[in-house]
Amino acid sequence: MTLETISKAKAFDGVQGVYRHQSVATNCEMTFAVFVPPQAKKQKCPALFYLSGLTCTHQNVMDKGEYRRMAAELGLIIVCPDTSPRGEDVADDADDWQLGKGAGFYLDATEAPWAAHYQMQTYVRDELYDLVLANFPIDPARVGVFGHSMGGHGALTLALKNPEKFKSCSAFAPIVNPSSCDWSTKALTAYLGEDKATWRNYDAVQLIEDGARYDTILVDQGSADGFLDDGLKPWLLQDACEKAGIDLTLNMREGYDHSYYFISSFMDDHLRWHVARLG
Amino acid sequence: MTLETISKAKAFDGVQGVYRHQSVATNCEMTFAVFVPPQAKKQKCPALFYLSGLTCTHQNVMDKGEYRRMAAELGLIIVCPDTSPRGEDVADDADDWQLGKGAGFYLDATEAPWAAHYQMQTYVRDELYDLVLANFPIDPARVGVFGHSMGGHGALTLALKNPEKFKSCSAFAPIVNPSSCDWSTKALTAYLGEDKATWRNYDAVQLIEDGARYDTILVDQGSADGFLDDGLKPWLLQDACEKAGIDLTLNMREGYDHSYYFISSFMDDHLRWHVARLG
Repeated sequence: MTLETISKAKAFDGVQGVYRHQSVATNCEMTFAVFVPPQAKKQKCPALFYLSGLTCTHQNVMDKGEYRRMAAELGLIIVCPDTSPRGEDVADDADDWQLGKGAGFYLDATEAPWAAHYQMQTYVRDELYDLVLANFPIDPARVGVFGHSMGGHGALTLALKNPEKFKSCSAFAPIVNPSSCDWSTKALTAYLGEDKATWRNYDAVQLIEDGARYDTILVDQGSADGFLDDGLKPWLLQDACEKAGIDLTLNMREGYDHSYYFISSFMDDHLRWHVARLG
Repeated sequence: MTLETISKAKAFDGVQGVYRHQSVATNCEMTFAVFVPPQAKKQKCPALFYLSGLTCTHQNVMDKGEYRRMAAELGLIIVCPDTSPRGEDVADDADDWQLGKGAGFYLDATEAPWAAHYQMQTYVRDELYDLVLANFPIDPARVGVFGHSMGGHGALTLALKNPEKFKSCSAFAPIVNPSSCDWSTKALTAYLGEDKATWRNYDAVQLIEDGARYDTILVDQGSADGFLDDGLKPWLLQDACEKAGIDLTLNMREGYDHSYYFISSFMDDHLRWHVARLG
């Protein structure tokens, strides 16, 4: 596995890098970012995967997430994947930001033409996971996942299905029940087909209904988020967690929207929360 | 004076806004950003002007500067102007990022065609200064200035010439002697003409040589900055300050480059430094 370094810069006494590799899972070149804190010079560190939302690449959170200061203080490695396969031969819907490039939904597509590249679950969970553990000083026993919006959906579903790989989980304004909201049903239909039974494997609320369990989950949600009522509906996750006995902390944040102004405001809280659980 | 609100978002319990107005000084519409911390709900706050570098608008530092958390903690208002006049009828050199739009150099141009709009000294020092004092809860006795690269040049020269308006001053990787470096002499010639005597009014080192004084200045400079030896040369400022008895703290930061990774790493230090001086 060849890992190409696109850029490296010192930040907060650590290193923010951007890397590219040929992915087997998505059958295209993939770019991702990794921040390595200063503590990693001397010891292996816990790591968090940050999964981004619709339209994003690895770069949005790298520019606007404000995670480096606290990650450097806590000794956390932060891994930021892209949100979909990329390249000219990758299927896309240029007219719809909720389908195609930038909208991988962290699932493994089964339908043509999407299945050829849209294998983001396998990519993040297996291929990138193994790649970063092999190439960065990550303690394999201390890996967590978090994300925003579509990436919050990715974090929740990956953690619920793979608690042995992702030992802590949190989300900012996650899509918790993509099967039920207008803005994700088109993508789920395209990627997985009409049979909604197959969608349940990529729906946090339904995974919990179907028996998936997780120790404890942190969610922050802005009350002024324009997608709150139609797309996000965190109360559906709250209901499912209550019924299943999952310890969910849902913080409704008065006046915050869906942007990185919201995410960055609570980034420190999330990083501290993960470190408290990963040790 | 009509101030149009382009966007407002809650961040760190404060408000990050972007505003537009018709400028008299630059004779075009100007856009700028202001962060107002939560303390401003109850009292007037000190304010800092952050002047950006070549190619930037108000947005680069807003996205990547990571100033909001500490500004909210300290109760600081942060004002981020654009770096030049804008618009279709504004003179430009599309082939040169060091001249024209994005490269206003915080001076008042005297030469055609630039003089019609490139009046960034007057814009920042007088027009925008008065505008934000009239429209935001700023304590007029506690206003400082800082900036990066070309904006560090702007901060140093504005503070040296107007210590009664800008009561604290710091810079990240500033251009300290634009008259002597390749990347700014073309702009100075275009904006001010061939007579280098007129350039001295916009050159921090020469202003100090010519008698300008300032209480104390903070500069941070990355040792891995690709522009260090040809464009920045902070030792020229150090020499001038030593001879003039100006208390300069010059921190050389090992391994840091010229980017916002560097700026954000030392943003907290600068904000604390200003507040300690502004009270």
